[in-house]
Amino acid sequence: MSPPTAQAVTDAVEERRELVNEAIVDALPITHPERLYEASRYLLDAGGKRLRPAVLLLTAEALADVEPLSTDYGAFPTLEGGTVDVMAAAVSIETIQSFTLIHDDIMDDDDLRRGVPAVHREYDLETAILAGDTLYSKAFEIMLESEAAPERSLEAVRTLARTCTRICEGQSLDVDFESRTDVTREEYLEMVELKTAVLYGAAASVPAILLQADQETVDALYRYGINVGTAFQIQDDVLDLTVPSETLGKQRGSDLVEDKRTLITLHARDQGVDVDSLVDADSVETVTEAEIDEAVSELEAAGSIGFAREKARSLVREGKDEIARLPENEAHETLEALADYLIERGY
Amino acid sequence: MSPPTAQAVTDAVEERRELVNEAIVDALPITHPERLYEASRYLLDAGGKRLRPAVLLLTAEALADVEPLSTDYGAFPTLEGGTVDVMAAAVSIETIQSFTLIHDDIMDDDDLRRGVPAVHREYDLETAILAGDTLYSKAFEIMLESEAAPERSLEAVRTLARTCTRICEGQSLDVDFESRTDVTREEYLEMVELKTAVLYGAAASVPAILLQADQETVDALYRYGINVGTAFQIQDDVLDLTVPSETLGKQRGSDLVEDKRTLITLHARDQGVDVDSLVDADSVETVTEAEIDEAVSELEAAGSIGFAREKARSLVREGKDEIARLPENEAHETLEALADYLIERGY
Repeated sequence: MSPPTAQAVTDAVEERRELVNEAIVDALPITHPERLYEASRYLLDAGGKRLRPAVLLLTAEALADVEPLSTDYGAFPTLEGGTVDVMAAAVSIETIQSFTLIHDDIMDDDDLRRGVPAVHREYDLETAILAGDTLYSKAFEIMLESEAAPERSLEAVRTLARTCTRICEGQSLDVDFESRTDVTREEYLEMVELKTAVLYGAAASVPAILLQADQETVDALYRYGINVGTAFQIQDDVLDLTVPSETLGKQRGSDLVEDKRTLITLHARDQGVDVDSLVDADSVETVTEAEIDEAVSELEAAGSIGFAREKARSLVREGKDEIARLPENEAHETLEALADYLIERGY
Repeated sequence: MSPPTAQAVTDAVEERRELVNEAIVDALPITHPERLYEASRYLLDAGGKRLRPAVLLLTAEALADVEPLSTDYGAFPTLEGGTVDVMAAAVSIETIQSFTLIHDDIMDDDDLRRGVPAVHREYDLETAILAGDTLYSKAFEIMLESEAAPERSLEAVRTLARTCTRICEGQSLDVDFESRTDVTREEYLEMVELKTAVLYGAAASVPAILLQADQETVDALYRYGINVGTAFQIQDDVLDLTVPSETLGKQRGSDLVEDKRTLITLHARDQGVDVDSLVDADSVETVTEAEIDEAVSELEAAGSIGFAREKARSLVREGKDEIARLPENEAHETLEALADYLIERGY
């Protein structure tokens, strides 16, 4: 059997997306007070690939060694007998993702998300803070509905709580970095791990916790998530420079315009490139494609884009090594291919 | 033995406050990233009576039938043998209280809290959102450190999550009420229950959950918290009108100036008082004491202040009835006296 193609990976994510979307509607009904719950659902309803839920569901399938999509996610067999609701865990993780996006958009003063106005623009600041806060506790309520053994359910909630704390720490570092010129690559990678990768770590390790896998497997899956989640963010930084604006859905090179630190610019700085002067324009409205082209050429000449790509590739290799212990089956292969896909995707 | 006096109640709260404060410092150390954790601790360090932790610790003492302050809160005997860390639960509840104050101050655009600048003024909006979000997940992490039986620990976390969701619902209703003139007393009482009283419900019921009390006792303690928490808020509304500004630490009658709905103004409106015209000034800077005096006289003449006082008294009576099932001991009497104190306090 040949390894799954990129198309097979996007198919696998898509096939699970509809089920995840239905479960989100069930878990987060629009009830009294309606305006609050409408605002809480607004961003979730606006779209999203549901990558993290897909990782969670595929991990459960790989561990349980079942045919993909053959088993009810709401009554999923554990390794020790009995069933758990892994879909509840998948919805919980996506609910946390949505809460962090709503609050991040306020902090970054971003107007658009998933092609629609950010929640604080569609509604207002108060409602956006409160919608995020509501999703936050709802994610815990939903995780508690997995019906796993009490010790396992507790461990899943503990993982969720620690993950949220780390995401806050990562976002705090990201905000601090904006006013610092001496950020190191190690600090940057720590920030990405905390802000972005830990939620992939949770998505991959929580199903192992719920299905009663051993601690070594739980830990290995957590590291798989950390590695591919970090690679995912580095690839995002590469795409910001290399994909046409129309495909990106935002101005190419916006990270350079906004002086955001990335692994690429930190590498370039260490090569002697004056990264703060790469782009003179100070807004995405006034920057020209020619200016971005020139900056990208300079970053390529310094080897910085290649450096970032190679770092992402090496993280994906390490991530795939971590899950070598999983049973050989189609879901396992899809998890490997998904790691490759995260750094090979065009946007 | 005569029932504890108001002084005995404030002494009981104070005696536990130092222990709670030490536990807060232990549970929320200022660690990397320092600025985030400093901002998260800022409001906690600025003061606060620690009323909710006191309710939690006293409830544990009443249930376990131990001499007040005689027992290590970190290794507190359950009703079924073994020990739990009830102080962790007390710190968790206070951490949630602090998170909600930080986010509420942003939403209400309040500048001061506990005599110091609100977190979004002392730091900035981004940091205040993030400090609140950090305390939110930390509260769950801390609650998970109670070392209770897994089923009980899960139930405590479930109570915490539901409580947080309800607080968000209550805050959402409170915000919506500002733009509505047709709010009913029932709607107001629902809002107060959700926004304020549920955290007292959690403070009173979580120790019963952790100490392995039966479900009827857990439920009765929850209702005790709901009743006294609601009475507490109604008394706050009364104090806003009746206590001199110097004692309140803010302008007396600020609720009237800001057109906030309270049980008092809703009752007055139902008596035919034109409550929106009671005070013409539209800011606490321009309102005069004479104007407030006249408004208060009108509310008194309509029987509205008396109505609110009587409602608070009746809630306290019901709350005390709920805990009649607890063992007769000093902590039980202090919980009864604390209910009285909440509506008899001068500020």
